[in-house]
Amino acid sequence: MSEPTATMLQSHPDPLADIEPDLRARALDLLMHCATVCTSCADACLAEENVAELRRCARLDLDCADVCRTAATILARQSRTDPSLLRAVIEACIVACRSCGEECRAHAGMHRHCRVCAEVCEQCAEACDAVLRDLATPVGGT
Amino acid sequence: MSEPTATMLQSHPDPLADIEPDLRARALDLLMHCATVCTSCADACLAEENVAELRRCARLDLDCADVCRTAATILARQSRTDPSLLRAVIEACIVACRSCGEECRAHAGMHRHCRVCAEVCEQCAEACDAVLRDLATPVGGT
Amino acid sequence: MSEPTATMLQSHPDPLADIEPDLRARALDLLMHCATVCTSCADACLAEENVAELRRCARLDLDCADVCRTAATILARQSRTDPSLLRAVIEACIVACRSCGEECRAHAGMHRHCRVCAEVCEQCAEACDAVLRDLATPVGGT
Amino acid sequence: MSEPTATMLQSHPDPLADIEPDLRARALDLLMHCATVCTSCADACLAEENVAELRRCARLDLDCADVCRTAATILARQSRTDPSLLRAVIEACIVACRSCGEECRAHAGMHRHCRVCAEVCEQCAEACDAVLRDLATPVGGT
Repeated sequence: MSEPTATMLQSHPDPLADIEPDLRARALDLLMHCATVCTSCADACLAEENVAELRRCARLDLDCADVCRTAATILARQSRTDPSLLRAVIEACIVACRSCGEECRAHAGMHRHCRVCAEVCEQCAEACDAVLRDLATPVGGT
Repeated sequence: MSEPTATMLQSHPDPLADIEPDLRARALDLLMHCATVCTSCADACLAEENVAELRRCARLDLDCADVCRTAATILARQSRTDPSLLRAVIEACIVACRSCGEECRAHAGMHRHCRVCAEVCEQCAEACDAVLRDLATPVGGT
Repeated sequence: MSEPTATMLQSHPDPLADIEPDLRARALDLLMHCATVCTSCADACLAEENVAELRRCARLDLDCADVCRTAATILARQSRTDPSLLRAVIEACIVACRSCGEECRAHAGMHRHCRVCAEVCEQCAEACDAVLRDLATPVGGT
Repeated sequence: MSEPTATMLQSHPDPLADIEPDLRARALDLLMHCATVCTSCADACLAEENVAELRRCARLDLDCADVCRTAATILARQSRTDPSLLRAVIEACIVACRSCGEECRAHAGMHRHCRVCAEVCEQCAEACDAVLRDLATPVGGT
């Protein structure tokens, strides 16, 4: 199912790629999944009997979903990117994924949705980190 | 990559499912991909030499991406759903995918990104249609 | 503060307006406010002692905020609009505002945030209705 | 029209405010307007005869609209905020508003929509800056 993303990125008219295409496609897929999984985790937290103890988890889920959705949208654009803007958005996304992932990790033993969400947040933060490191590497450089 | 969506949906505390889980997971995955592919197609249209002829395509890409993103977010919530609201959002999404798909189909011979986008829009409209039909079926009914 | 919206709409290069500019500006302002107020009401519900009784309210707040945000984004575009798509999005928005407004109205005596939210949802539904009626009127018609 | 925002913020059950309420309300109103105005400017750029020279402007408009919309959503939540996440999102928003504002300023003599957009971006960046400075001040400190 992740093929459309990769195919799409390759069909763009601009030849110059500021980010390695595989890293971009992987980050895009994880950002989309993280947005959906965090949205679902917030909804599940709200449905739990112990909702009063999951307020912070729901809050961070919602924030993380919003930031991931926007990061995916901006990363999907390949043309005339402002590198400092892309970097700031990806950095905010890493902060959101780490905060949300840590909070969900703390409830992972009790709620399976928190465990799944923690895993996806952690993978998403790593994929964003890889994009960030690639952005910092001068084109053609080592 | 679509496993986290399915796993997540199954880990929700509410036992009652208003929509068949596989249909929901498939629609969610296609809505996310359609949002990303339409965002990318708008960006590619803007980068084409004949951008002046692709204004309507870019407009419909942007609208379709926005509607798909919101439909995915609302469909990801499984608890205390308002069925008339979910139905109206999915219906709007089908209109958006059909409009955008038709416009992209008209440029599919000239631009590969429009061809990929048309295909994803058509698949997304079908997956949304399946959710809509499932929503209309009384629970326990044939 | 709503002047930038009106000024912006008037500075668009396309002379043809499918919707009466004042109706569009008023709907845009209310959609933005409704998105923010619903987001805030969901957050306030989650913070209340009786959060367990406000689950449905928080759910509808979140859905309504998402739909209003997308409706505002699509209504802000004046060029090459697909009328059937715009209509479907505005209709979904009215359903969302009415559902959320009714639920919040039921808690209006107990929580001031629900009372404010109910009022804004009702005003937003009316402003969207006015846009919908205007869209249905043939240009130059009575 | 900005009263609902301020009234809403005051009706939240959590007494502790991490950000001065007037600063928060002003930033929220400007973030919403900036999202709408940038969306409209991108649409206007796409409709201009010289669209080929406005590609970068449309791109930055779209990015800035997306970031402002998400920043408004996250800033509207007052409960259990992760300060480092809020800070990163507001910082990304300032980068987006400054980039978009500069680009629009360069076309302000030719296109009125770019002039209006540049002004709103600049005001929004300032309002976000004020929130950021307030976040950095220890509670109860000078």
